[in-house]
Amino acid sequence: MMKYCDQCGSDKIEKIVPSGDNKPRLVCKSCETIHYRNPKIVAGVLPIYGDKVLLCKRSIEPCVGMWNVPSGYLENKESVEEGAAREVWEEALGKVELIGTHSVYSIARISQVYIHFLGNLVDGKFGVGEESLDCQLFSEEEIPWDNIAFTSSTFTLKRYFADRKAGLQQTHLGNYPEVE
Amino acid sequence: MMKYCDQCGSDKIEKIVPSGDNKPRLVCKSCETIHYRNPKIVAGVLPIYGDKVLLCKRSIEPCVGMWNVPSGYLENKESVEEGAAREVWEEALGKVELIGTHSVYSIARISQVYIHFLGNLVDGKFGVGEESLDCQLFSEEEIPWDNIAFTSSTFTLKRYFADRKAGLQQTHLGNYPEVE
Repeated sequence: MMKYCDQCGSDKIEKIVPSGDNKPRLVCKSCETIHYRNPKIVAGVLPIYGDKVLLCKRSIEPCVGMWNVPSGYLENKESVEEGAAREVWEEALGKVELIGTHSVYSIARISQVYIHFLGNLVDGKFGVGEESLDCQLFSEEEIPWDNIAFTSSTFTLKRYFADRKAGLQQTHLGNYPEVE
Repeated sequence: MMKYCDQCGSDKIEKIVPSGDNKPRLVCKSCETIHYRNPKIVAGVLPIYGDKVLLCKRSIEPCVGMWNVPSGYLENKESVEEGAAREVWEEALGKVELIGTHSVYSIARISQVYIHFLGNLVDGKFGVGEESLDCQLFSEEEIPWDNIAFTSSTFTLKRYFADRKAGLQQTHLGNYPEVE
């Protein structure tokens, strides 16, 4: 939460509805700057190799020790595809060829939107990145369902395996706390 | 661009790579807060009614007087679907039933990601919202191609009409300056 205006340094920050707007914003009463706040994108890829998918065991909070679809905050000046592929590299030292958009999953409460792609894990090669304690390929039967870090990952995994059985490839819309 | 730390009010903001990171960030040398900056989501819907689609003529900068797929910045605490439907209401006083995710279009240079849905325009009803000079239904032949506000809109329109001819409904990935 903003305590000082980042344009003029004043502490006269108030939450008001600016004229012509319909939502409360943080506004500096000193220099009149309106400080907009917007949701963040979490970009990721479900890497596929044969009948298995690659998950990462998190080494950082939140959810240390739990498994996750490799993903993380999209950075400025990145496309979603670039950010998603970067996360697979950083978390699992793997390269992916993107297949398509798999899920768009909103967690409105904390202003996050997950965008997960499907991707082929190139040559089945991967390692363990700095943000991971471990990385492993799992078949559907091996997925540690009770130890998945985020509902967005569970949603993506459930929908992926269901689509694979049905011979479908499609984009899913999800919202917290939906998992399948 | 941040001039003062929004946590302590100091002007000792430097762009450095924090330890454990690999990208330059705005860091306050006084209170050590790292100020992350992330891309914004622009959420929108291409409203469909029969063989026509609804576009809005912009009344605000940028691109005043040019036509656009109704869309705008996603707000905190909104899902992408909610934000997209809200924009159709604000810009064109129309209600939509979402059909599915149509395009994810990154403009990395300015750190924006457009997420456009397809939606059925309920009862074909619409008006002209405050951010619009006009709103109109267009068949493919009537689209004012030389007067479309953003490449993301052109991309969405071109892909929509191509898919419709082919009987497909799918999600497209695009990147500026791609338009088809």
